[in-house]
Amino acid sequence: MEICKPLKTEDYVVQPVVDVSPPKWHMAHTTWFFENFILKAHKKKYEVFDKDFAYLFNSYYEEEGERTLRPERGFISRPGVEEIVRYREHVDHHMFELLDELDEITEEFSYLMELGLNHEQQHQELLVTDIKYILGHNPIFPVYKDFPEGEEVPKVNFKENYLEFADGIYDIGHKEKSFCFDNERGAHNVYLHHYQVLDRLISNDEYMEFMAAGGYSNFRYWLKEGWDWIQENKITAPMYWHRIDKEWYHYTLSGLRKVNPYVAVSHVSFYEAEAFARWKGKRLLTEFEWENSCKKLRNEIPETSNFLEKGYFSPVPRVTESFQFYGDVWEWTNSAYLPYPYYQKSDGALGEYNGKFMINQMVLRGGSCATPISHIRSTYRNFFHPNLRWQFSGIRLAESID
Amino acid sequence: MEICKPLKTEDYVVQPVVDVSPPKWHMAHTTWFFENFILKAHKKKYEVFDKDFAYLFNSYYEEEGERTLRPERGFISRPGVEEIVRYREHVDHHMFELLDELDEITEEFSYLMELGLNHEQQHQELLVTDIKYILGHNPIFPVYKDFPEGEEVPKVNFKENYLEFADGIYDIGHKEKSFCFDNERGAHNVYLHHYQVLDRLISNDEYMEFMAAGGYSNFRYWLKEGWDWIQENKITAPMYWHRIDKEWYHYTLSGLRKVNPYVAVSHVSFYEAEAFARWKGKRLLTEFEWENSCKKLRNEIPETSNFLEKGYFSPVPRVTESFQFYGDVWEWTNSAYLPYPYYQKSDGALGEYNGKFMINQMVLRGGSCATPISHIRSTYRNFFHPNLRWQFSGIRLAESID
Amino acid sequence: MEICKPLKTEDYVVQPVVDVSPPKWHMAHTTWFFENFILKAHKKKYEVFDKDFAYLFNSYYEEEGERTLRPERGFISRPGVEEIVRYREHVDHHMFELLDELDEITEEFSYLMELGLNHEQQHQELLVTDIKYILGHNPIFPVYKDFPEGEEVPKVNFKENYLEFADGIYDIGHKEKSFCFDNERGAHNVYLHHYQVLDRLISNDEYMEFMAAGGYSNFRYWLKEGWDWIQENKITAPMYWHRIDKEWYHYTLSGLRKVNPYVAVSHVSFYEAEAFARWKGKRLLTEFEWENSCKKLRNEIPETSNFLEKGYFSPVPRVTESFQFYGDVWEWTNSAYLPYPYYQKSDGALGEYNGKFMINQMVLRGGSCATPISHIRSTYRNFFHPNLRWQFSGIRLAESID
Amino acid sequence: MEICKPLKTEDYVVQPVVDVSPPKWHMAHTTWFFENFILKAHKKKYEVFDKDFAYLFNSYYEEEGERTLRPERGFISRPGVEEIVRYREHVDHHMFELLDELDEITEEFSYLMELGLNHEQQHQELLVTDIKYILGHNPIFPVYKDFPEGEEVPKVNFKENYLEFADGIYDIGHKEKSFCFDNERGAHNVYLHHYQVLDRLISNDEYMEFMAAGGYSNFRYWLKEGWDWIQENKITAPMYWHRIDKEWYHYTLSGLRKVNPYVAVSHVSFYEAEAFARWKGKRLLTEFEWENSCKKLRNEIPETSNFLEKGYFSPVPRVTESFQFYGDVWEWTNSAYLPYPYYQKSDGALGEYNGKFMINQMVLRGGSCATPISHIRSTYRNFFHPNLRWQFSGIRLAESID
Repeated sequence: MEICKPLKTEDYVVQPVVDVSPPKWHMAHTTWFFENFILKAHKKKYEVFDKDFAYLFNSYYEEEGERTLRPERGFISRPGVEEIVRYREHVDHHMFELLDELDEITEEFSYLMELGLNHEQQHQELLVTDIKYILGHNPIFPVYKDFPEGEEVPKVNFKENYLEFADGIYDIGHKEKSFCFDNERGAHNVYLHHYQVLDRLISNDEYMEFMAAGGYSNFRYWLKEGWDWIQENKITAPMYWHRIDKEWYHYTLSGLRKVNPYVAVSHVSFYEAEAFARWKGKRLLTEFEWENSCKKLRNEIPETSNFLEKGYFSPVPRVTESFQFYGDVWEWTNSAYLPYPYYQKSDGALGEYNGKFMINQMVLRGGSCATPISHIRSTYRNFFHPNLRWQFSGIRLAESID
Repeated sequence: MEICKPLKTEDYVVQPVVDVSPPKWHMAHTTWFFENFILKAHKKKYEVFDKDFAYLFNSYYEEEGERTLRPERGFISRPGVEEIVRYREHVDHHMFELLDELDEITEEFSYLMELGLNHEQQHQELLVTDIKYILGHNPIFPVYKDFPEGEEVPKVNFKENYLEFADGIYDIGHKEKSFCFDNERGAHNVYLHHYQVLDRLISNDEYMEFMAAGGYSNFRYWLKEGWDWIQENKITAPMYWHRIDKEWYHYTLSGLRKVNPYVAVSHVSFYEAEAFARWKGKRLLTEFEWENSCKKLRNEIPETSNFLEKGYFSPVPRVTESFQFYGDVWEWTNSAYLPYPYYQKSDGALGEYNGKFMINQMVLRGGSCATPISHIRSTYRNFFHPNLRWQFSGIRLAESID
Repeated sequence: MEICKPLKTEDYVVQPVVDVSPPKWHMAHTTWFFENFILKAHKKKYEVFDKDFAYLFNSYYEEEGERTLRPERGFISRPGVEEIVRYREHVDHHMFELLDELDEITEEFSYLMELGLNHEQQHQELLVTDIKYILGHNPIFPVYKDFPEGEEVPKVNFKENYLEFADGIYDIGHKEKSFCFDNERGAHNVYLHHYQVLDRLISNDEYMEFMAAGGYSNFRYWLKEGWDWIQENKITAPMYWHRIDKEWYHYTLSGLRKVNPYVAVSHVSFYEAEAFARWKGKRLLTEFEWENSCKKLRNEIPETSNFLEKGYFSPVPRVTESFQFYGDVWEWTNSAYLPYPYYQKSDGALGEYNGKFMINQMVLRGGSCATPISHIRSTYRNFFHPNLRWQFSGIRLAESID
Repeated sequence: MEICKPLKTEDYVVQPVVDVSPPKWHMAHTTWFFENFILKAHKKKYEVFDKDFAYLFNSYYEEEGERTLRPERGFISRPGVEEIVRYREHVDHHMFELLDELDEITEEFSYLMELGLNHEQQHQELLVTDIKYILGHNPIFPVYKDFPEGEEVPKVNFKENYLEFADGIYDIGHKEKSFCFDNERGAHNVYLHHYQVLDRLISNDEYMEFMAAGGYSNFRYWLKEGWDWIQENKITAPMYWHRIDKEWYHYTLSGLRKVNPYVAVSHVSFYEAEAFARWKGKRLLTEFEWENSCKKLRNEIPETSNFLEKGYFSPVPRVTESFQFYGDVWEWTNSAYLPYPYYQKSDGALGEYNGKFMINQMVLRGGSCATPISHIRSTYRNFFHPNLRWQFSGIRLAESID
């Protein structure tokens, strides 16, 4: 509700591209998730707020029946924002009642609650990125909120400092009792060869060098499908970038601003990340190298990390020398999103949460400036198709050592 | 403004299909029309309300420069409804000032004013049909306003009464000094052969007979492109019709209602109108036969005609025996929209109003329940592509007599 | 068979675009037409050559059942050319036998024979244009046959000589007993206002002037759909034209040749013809003006006319001063292809020949260098969608006189 | 040349779908590969046969310049088959001359020769599968060659016999000096957990059980993109299967034949393979499990394996009890096609051979009845998009053991 506060009613309705959902849809869908998976199952005599909402606000759960086609979410003007706020208040109210009523919290119930809250957090991130898309594709570039963008000079150098890791067998996946998604489970061994990784993200400055060097017009750096994709879509810069009077600007939630060279490059596709790495003579990490590096460095999430709660909603200049493995932007890895050896999908509708997407997507790691800090961990696997770039997604380099 | 009153803010934003524009776009575009073509040219020191609006709210005037792509009108959440209302008030205010200031009303100015008002009326009709589309394609079928639909039994029979007209040379086109669009000018002669026309529109009852007789599954009645169109789009009934418990319902601006057999069938495409006529062993009229019949009958527009001002926003049962050539639904003719012999398009941007659309469209005549009564006349030529049916469009039959 | 002689076996198979059929398909389809509509109905104990052929070689006759989808004709390698030649010989043989056997030639039989032969002639023309498309879209521009192209200077001037016609009621349509298609029947009156028409076709020279004057980049000359069409398809010249070393060349069936300025422009779409006329301050004729002009001039088809039999397969320089209303290129008219007042489509499958195409197409008149001379007449109506240009199609100008 | 012998000239030209190339294109392209990469570089005074051929027959080597668009290969009728045979003879002749002339065979030259021959072998396989597609999508199902299909009953049971493999670190990739593609190099360690694999391929019989159990209509077995794919394409059986009189038939290169239950299922997509495995409660192998199993079993390729040389061009019943890891059908693995840790793409145009395809494709292992026996090895990585099924592709099951 906090994220939506700066919006006008009109902003809640729009779906400019299939991947971006209208904010009111996010609001109603997360509410429906609690109603459908918790209240209906666990609250005595609970009656659904409106029986049409299952059809309107189910995202992709086949198990739960027919639903609005995804590309048509932006065609639905009613129920309006006010009614959805009432829906939310109604469900919140019943959730609190339910929590009061419960004699004991079963493990299953506790899991559902945690899942519901994590699901909510995922949609908090999506709200930020979808609002950015909606406003950032409006030709008048409306300001969402005038965030301080941290324009000051960086406190640390942008040296190419690589961290080295020996070869060996390493633990991958979530082992603890604490909550995680089913795609992280199945803790297992992975053999990694000797490798090193850059201790920071690639900056706008470095990316502009790639652009200036003709990166977008030399097929040698590109995967074939990436090359076709930039031709067809006439792509010559990250999403949201605009060339104005020979300078690069980009849309931020604070409006059009000059690109800050000392900040991590964002809104690049996997194809662009991969081409950049090839141009540099390096490569992207695998998701296993990322996770292992992170664990080996005992990289607890630093307080200075730029997550949702910081309120920047944009990557900011690096403030410490410490290894930056969290926040600012998600990091594309060169790992396809596939099941771990002992992967078991959950039963019923919730089994549709992750497993059915395990094809044609690439894994991203580390969270972004739009991710709630309590949502992320070293085993967390995000995933998107290689051409998508409306998320805060960036680049880290690595290389194998013989 | 009156038409928009029952809307929620969210309803103003949505564009579910390329032909349907968001209500706030209509509101801003008609305002821009006055600002751009009248205030900018005639009001001293007038400054445009917002220079971005030309880009946002120009429809298709190449002469006026770049503009939002038509399919993307529904992606633009800002400026919001309130700001557009302020825009309208601003332009209204300056229009009134201008009218006060003017020493004399030139013929050119008078023409622009009439054009602006007629343009406004056209968008009033589009507002009604677009709102119907937006709400009627929402799975919860919201009610716009609870109109009385005139459910009582018809006062007159649905006999097949034909009116006969002798062959000869007839006058076509607008001759008087009064306002008309450039496509009506170039009054000229047309030779018509002996023909007769039905004195009323085809009813839902008759159309349901066609459906029951397998009209939609027999290629013999259809133009090839019509047949392909119903196959591809799986069309088996007029737009807005739903089969529920073995009865036909249709969405009206008052919500889902049972189809009234005594009312003119509406929301059919040219293809459907033509197939119906062929099934009946008749044909559609040409636009010349329509105009001539209308003029010959000295058919002044009857007070009982169902136009916008009646407030039904839906066809209603026939109330008189008099010949029904106006209102309820536009009548598809079998005439392609082409220039008259002496057609001259206007100069400058306003020359783009009509002439450039003279290909691949069919002419409709007579106005509908969403047309302002003062907007219509016997020479008025409306035009749409043969597959479109979100307008109130229906059927009248005719035949040639040897 | 004669037209196909210069082909290689491979050329018979290819369908580079949906409108163009493989030559072996034409060969088999015209043969099937005789087998299906004549032999099966009239020859005793006739057995079809191969029962699969109805599926493979029916074009669009719904009445005759399922058939190969039009865009898939080029995917069918078998039956091969040799087998289709055998099919043709088989059907020819049985046709001759049938003609010998018949005691009397009924009117219906005679009509079917004439229809079959006219159908054959239509496919002769399509063979020429489709072969041109197949070879002309091969990057190595193969030569079909080294026709003399008549490169000599024109014998006559390209003055702008207009022929004037008074207003009045004129006869349109086919009246005689002789064969015609059903779309020409229904002879009737049309009132024409005073008009004049250019006594010749527009030349390449004049068209190059239009191009040089920026005709393709000025929206003012174009119908909206035409303007969209040239943008989307990046069209800047007639089909088959190539700019090489600052000169215009075009593919002819004799290979790439320099564009001859003294020859009628060809392979333009309706959109281009209309834009050219608007640029010239004139307009295209209606099909009625064309037919009337032709009849009034008692324009018997001159022997010098460039039809199929001349063997040029390309427009040639004008050789006489006489009015050139036939041959070289079809002339786009500004008339939509619609039924005449008394139009009756034929019964059964043959009723699908013309009537079901009467939407979204424009009429062309006069025949071309690929039309058999005995196939054409002053009442003949050809028709294509306004964007098509693989036929030999050109331009004649007209204007209304007050 | 041998594979093409049964073709008619017409069969050489057709491209019914973008993935399938015309046989004459394959013939010319493999020839061009030798001419372009070997003769041009190594033969003194060699002149190319025809300078247009680089444009016509380059497949996807950006480094080598512009080329015919892939979907347009089937529109090119010339050069004809005879000319391409001459081209081939010409290049063969010069290749033999070159081999005679060479004083020493450098390592680079030797690699190019082996690459050229392996490239040739890949197109031999593609020729078989593309010919099958071309003839198998012709409604008359032509016979390519009347192969004996091995209809006899299977000699061995179809028990579910699983082979178990302990966890540990295993060698993956090509280590020997012998030829391999660059995507197999970078021999490295992979940690595998305890797993077991079925010692044979899934049979038609088992797959028909899946179909009978409603496999194609239960979303629970499907990846989301797989489910969307079967809906959109109305897929209810493997490619080439037809339901006739309540029996399953499939097209083979010997024509339509009844599906043999004792033969490996073929022409399934990754989506179908994955859904089948999920239905069975198992999973597909990873490519590493496949390679390791194969190496551990010291699985030299058995003489009985069904490869191209056997001449069946179709999977056949199992003839021995020995573990069947080679031939019949390629086995979909659940590994995405990605680079190995030490992967280095080759320099220049040949670097485009493999690396640029490493996205959105899944690895297949083991070779098929259309693969030359000398082409395959345990480290060989084939790859296709998960929806493709015109290759001989089938299913092997595995599972993890705790």
